[in-house]
This record gives sequence, structure tokens and C-alpha cells, in this order.
Amino acid sequence: MKRVAVILSGCGVNDGAEIHESVLTLLALDRANAEVTVAAPDIAQMHVVNHQTGDVADGESRNVQVESARIARGPVKSVSELNLDELDAVVLPGGFGAAKNLSTFAVDGAGCSVDESTAEFLERFHGAGKPIGFACISPAIAAKIFGDKGVQLTIGTDEGMASALESVGANHISCHVEEFVVDKDLKIVSTPAYMLGQRISDVEKGISKWIDVVLSLVD
Amino acid sequence: MKRVAVILSGCGVNDGAEIHESVLTLLALDRANAEVTVAAPDIAQMHVVNHQTGDVADGESRNVQVESARIARGPVKSVSELNLDELDAVVLPGGFGAAKNLSTFAVDGAGCSVDESTAEFLERFHGAGKPIGFACISPAIAAKIFGDKGVQLTIGTDEGMASALESVGANHISCHVEEFVVDKDLKIVSTPAYMLGQRISDVEKGISKWIDVVLSLVD
Repeated sequence: MKRVAVILSGCGVNDGAEIHESVLTLLALDRANAEVTVAAPDIAQMHVVNHQTGDVADGESRNVQVESARIARGPVKSVSELNLDELDAVVLPGGFGAAKNLSTFAVDGAGCSVDESTAEFLERFHGAGKPIGFACISPAIAAKIFGDKGVQLTIGTDEGMASALESVGANHISCHVEEFVVDKDLKIVSTPAYMLGQRISDVEKGISKWIDVVLSLVD
Repeated sequence: MKRVAVILSGCGVNDGAEIHESVLTLLALDRANAEVTVAAPDIAQMHVVNHQTGDVADGESRNVQVESARIARGPVKSVSELNLDELDAVVLPGGFGAAKNLSTFAVDGAGCSVDESTAEFLERFHGAGKPIGFACISPAIAAKIFGDKGVQLTIGTDEGMASALESVGANHISCHVEEFVVDKDLKIVSTPAYMLGQRISDVEKGISKWIDVVLSLVD
């Protein structure tokens, strides 16, 4: 049984983990009989967005780990608690939380900083030769951490976004919502998901293939 | 194209709509090429539960419609805005929100009251001969509203729950997580989902069949 950590960034597309992508990731992993550990950093969200109006909810504050537990249906680990030796792969669904909580990409662009516990864990995980998957906007984190290695990745077809990721060394490859890009040398797999997807059934196809490829890279 | 309303009850299993069930409902509807309208009552949640600890978050308050918009990835209608003539079917995923926000079942049991806008809409919808689907704990709402008609439904295999629903006139039928119960005369379809499910992939099978049967009952 392959052991996979899913790192979430809250609960809701505009200020946290994209809920559909997160659930479809859990579905694909369960179908593949993976043993799943959900985790999130124990930090405050950048902000809370009212998803009905699109406005920032001034004065409200939510914790990334606590909100991520909604998607997991119960307690999740903090990223700093994850044990490299007990995991075979790690995947990160998207949502603005990847660019607002796991990193500062939404504010700072490609030169962003990445949450310390997340960056440290992903670097060690990669150093151990284990595969990592990034979906939707989360490849911005891969570009920041693995750009110096010329990582091949996709965030879909947006030229502005692609240029931003290439500005820090990543090699961007355009990709359809139902497909994925795999950097076999670095064992990094990405899929556009809702960066491109208009329909949940299309996103499901891409996420499903993405998970299968990540699992195929486990030694 | 069949037009279906999905009535949510917040965002999170312990105080709102069960997120997996809600997303799998949207997935099944999209696969069936249904036109989906997401709605929720514009009311305060009964309370907010910290899903990391399981404790009630004292002093916090969230709105059911606003939190449901997280699952919909944007604005949702209030239930009172739904137009009967523009819809062919209505479905309600589960989660404690169905028993805490859409009704008072979690507090009052089978003799609960149902949110006024939701009860009024479901009664009119049923009166128009259109099908309604209830998943997980939400059949408690069907028992309360349609118990006097002897509605056939399921919440899985829990005997205490089954007795409670039968005490208000419902006819409970035990059912596996991957299956559903259909009352063809009343056009009411139910599936146990996470009342029984241990794995998201099993819940997906039941939800998928449930949606297909609801759609098959559209005239």
C-alpha cells in the first residue's frame, strides 16, 4: 500500500485549498488503495474571503490546519509533524491557499516565499528521491523551490503565469485540463485542474491521471 | 438538459454540508450533463465546530449560504430564491448541517422543525410531482415532511436512527452504502453515503447511482 500525504491550504478556492480538487485527489488516492495522511501548516490564513460576495471578510481570522480538517472530515497533521520515512509520495491540490497560505505567490509573484515547514519538507522529500505532485496553482511552489533545477511543469496555458514561473528557472509546458506534465528526472508531476477546467468532470479526469502518474513514480 | 438544484447546509461535516458528498453530487450531476443550481438558506449556522478538535468554537458565527458558496466555488442562491418552474429535480447531500441548520434533528430528533424556506420549497416541489433526493442524514428531513405519506427511505442500517424516522411515519429500509432506496410513488430517492461509508470511493458509487435514479424520475 503506497503512503501518500495530501498537503492542504485551508478550505475554499478563494482563501484556501480548492475543495473539488482536494476531494477528487482523495477519491483518486482511495481508488488506488493508497494510505492517505492529510496535512496542512499550523498557521493563520492570509485572510478570509466571503465566497458569496468575493470580498475579504475584515476582522475574521481562520487557521489553515483547522479549516483543512473540514475537507479531511477530522483532524489533520501539521506539515511539521510529517515523517519522511513513513511516506512514499506527497501531493498538493490547488486553490488560492497555495498562493496565499502555503506561499506568498498571490502577493509577491514568482519570487515569493514558501511557508517554512512546507518548503523544508518538500526539499527533504525531493532530496530522498520521492515523487511530488502539484495541481492547479500549486506548481508556483514547485517553480520557486525547484526552479534552479529547471523543473518541467504546467499551470495550463496562461502565458503570463507561464512567464512568471519561467522567470525563476522553471520550464513551463502548456497542458490540457485532462492531462498532466511529468518531469521524470525530478519526479515532479503537475496538472492544470481549475487553472483551466470549466467542468468538474474534466478536472476529475486530470486529477485522476495525475495521481496515477505520481503513484507510478514511487520506487 | 435536466435542471437540478443542490441544497447545501454549510461547509464541513460537523456543522455544515458534508464536503465529499457535496462534491461527489456535483461530479455525478456534471457527468450526467445536468444544469446545476446550488442553493442554501440564508441563515446563521447552529454553531461552528472546530473540525481539528471537534469542539464548538465559542463566539464564532458563520452563515449557511456564505459557507456553502465555498463548495460551489462562488455565489449560491438562497433557497427562497429558487424557482420551481426552472427546476426538474432537487437533491440534498448530508452532513450535520442537514440536522443542525436545515432542520433541528440533531437537537430535537424526529419531531424536529425544518428550516421554513427549505420545508416550504420541498413541499411545493413534491406537490408538483418532481423528484427529490436525500443523502446521508438528510432523509431525516424527508421523514419529517413526508412521513405522513409513509415515505420509503434509508439512512443506512442504524436501528436507532431507523426507529426515530419510523416514529414520524417513514418506512425505513436498510441499505448498503453503494446502493439507494427509491420511493417511486413519491419520487423520493435516498442513499446512506457517510452514514455508513468508510471509504470515499464507496460513497462515490452510492452517490452516483442516487443521482442517476433521481434524474431518471424527471418527467
